[in-house]
Amino acid sequence: MKTTLTLEDIYTPVREALRRIPALIQETLQTPNKQIREIVDYFFSKNGKFLRPALLLLGAGLARSLREDAAVLSEKNETNELHLASATEIFHAATLIHDDIIDSARLRRGIPTLNVKWGPQTAVLVGDFFHDRAMGEIFHYGNEKIIPLFLRTAGEICDGEVHELNEKNNVDLQESAHLEIIRKKTASLLACSLETGACVWGLDDKRLAALRNFGIFFGMAFQIIDDCLDFTGEEREFGKFLGGDLEEGVYTLPVIRLLGSADRLKAVELLRDSKGSKRFGMLLELLRKNGALEYAREKARMFIEKARLELQNFPDSIYRASLEQLADYVLERHR
Amino acid sequence: MKTTLTLEDIYTPVREALRRIPALIQETLQTPNKQIREIVDYFFSKNGKFLRPALLLLGAGLARSLREDAAVLSEKNETNELHLASATEIFHAATLIHDDIIDSARLRRGIPTLNVKWGPQTAVLVGDFFHDRAMGEIFHYGNEKIIPLFLRTAGEICDGEVHELNEKNNVDLQESAHLEIIRKKTASLLACSLETGACVWGLDDKRLAALRNFGIFFGMAFQIIDDCLDFTGEEREFGKFLGGDLEEGVYTLPVIRLLGSADRLKAVELLRDSKGSKRFGMLLELLRKNGALEYAREKARMFIEKARLELQNFPDSIYRASLEQLADYVLERHR
Repeated sequence: MKTTLTLEDIYTPVREALRRIPALIQETLQTPNKQIREIVDYFFSKNGKFLRPALLLLGAGLARSLREDAAVLSEKNETNELHLASATEIFHAATLIHDDIIDSARLRRGIPTLNVKWGPQTAVLVGDFFHDRAMGEIFHYGNEKIIPLFLRTAGEICDGEVHELNEKNNVDLQESAHLEIIRKKTASLLACSLETGACVWGLDDKRLAALRNFGIFFGMAFQIIDDCLDFTGEEREFGKFLGGDLEEGVYTLPVIRLLGSADRLKAVELLRDSKGSKRFGMLLELLRKNGALEYAREKARMFIEKARLELQNFPDSIYRASLEQLADYVLERHR
Repeated sequence: MKTTLTLEDIYTPVREALRRIPALIQETLQTPNKQIREIVDYFFSKNGKFLRPALLLLGAGLARSLREDAAVLSEKNETNELHLASATEIFHAATLIHDDIIDSARLRRGIPTLNVKWGPQTAVLVGDFFHDRAMGEIFHYGNEKIIPLFLRTAGEICDGEVHELNEKNNVDLQESAHLEIIRKKTASLLACSLETGACVWGLDDKRLAALRNFGIFFGMAFQIIDDCLDFTGEEREFGKFLGGDLEEGVYTLPVIRLLGSADRLKAVELLRDSKGSKRFGMLLELLRKNGALEYAREKARMFIEKARLELQNFPDSIYRASLEQLADYVLERHR
């Protein structure tokens, strides 16, 4: 199924709840420290896609719609949902801030990163601050399933990032190792968001596993497309400089595919070349000719197909429809 | 009262428990990620003073000795104590790792810092990893008083560090602002460690406040002496390069005192001078002549006096005696 829906269309079932997230984020990050306040305002002056809060709320909707006693539990659970949704966005922001230090990234959501604007030192601390505040909310509004889930996820993200760092400039990086890295660093938090929402409403273990699988497959596709956009995106839409991964020696799926093909020698030569301004264009051309970008996109499509299958464990609902649309959207997104 | 006791002497009442901490730290930081394992081994190849676990265990001992039903609660509470003590050391290690990035420090416990050996990028992630694992333990073994206490403390430390960063190279930094910074960045975790131990054994609120005050005053003195040692210590004993604060533009109590004295102009000139190799020696001489180092030490003595007064809220015990000895030790320490 092809879709030309916008994210806003897709978010319809949780639109009202999502509107309340920015204010909750501000509330959670309140501090008398002027400098931190300024940085909070700066960072959230450009909103992201709010993908994690949306997934959390959709997971919650899906689980709620299966409960007959939902009305009784409503008020408390909805408060928990909202706070947890805002916490996942802050948690995610914390990882972005530390990631941008690690990758020496200069642009995020179309504006200079914190490490560029305030220096990496302040950025380390602000990342810590965001992370701790998010964890505080999770401990306050989460339950005995949600709290260990987040702790595990935080560990997985970290693990994936250390692994990625170790594999920088490794022209022998295998696809399976790369997929494991993106599962940990990206897919795990997307799955965790969905699961968290569902855990607020006590979804049964079998369906919870299906939802987690959806999140993992969806997340793998999401990251693969993101990595393709790092080559083929429009900088203005994408909000980052193109070729950032390459510049940092991070080889993503298209490059790994190229390195495993008959074009390996040419690719190695280009990758080891000094950082000439022409290098990016030449590599992009090679990726296109080789079919490596198309290969990566095909892989993403496969993951999305697997993700969609998992949703068959749920009856039809506006929430399930929204997750299906989101899955298709990922394959067509430009930002 | 003067003392020539060693830390090992002072730790006597909790010696057996402390011996079990290194193995627990290793257990808590277990991971299949080889690189992280290597860094864990490297970092803990040089043990610190274990001051925070010791304080936690002493706080626990103090509270336990006041309970008649201690024997009944013993087994579970002692497991909690040990895990929380190891968690505070890991938590502290995480802040040291991020601090060393922020301060571009080159030496820690006499060996190169992680940012020197593995680069600041890996160090950011390893600090995150340590922090998350510590928090995991705290959530697992803490109670409804301990968990929010740690979340608050994490926020305070971060706040203090951002404040310190903002005041770099500020020759108008006031003593009161500086004292607030060190209360947050150093004293708060020392107080939190003591309180945590006491909270395992449900110490009453009045005594808990006294213990917290002891921890804060003790911590202020501890940091002031640390800052003096950055000028007058022996590098081999201190385990860091001297003059590190100065090089980073962090003005500590002796320098702030100097800047508020008749020697202000000379001091400003030296501070603004290019980083000549002679600058440190000249400033040290000026600090000595001016009496600024002695002023800072006197301030530390005052804080220790206030700390000791708080202990009068507790009956005599080996734990109270140990805290008193620790207070005196701080004033005489060389590392």
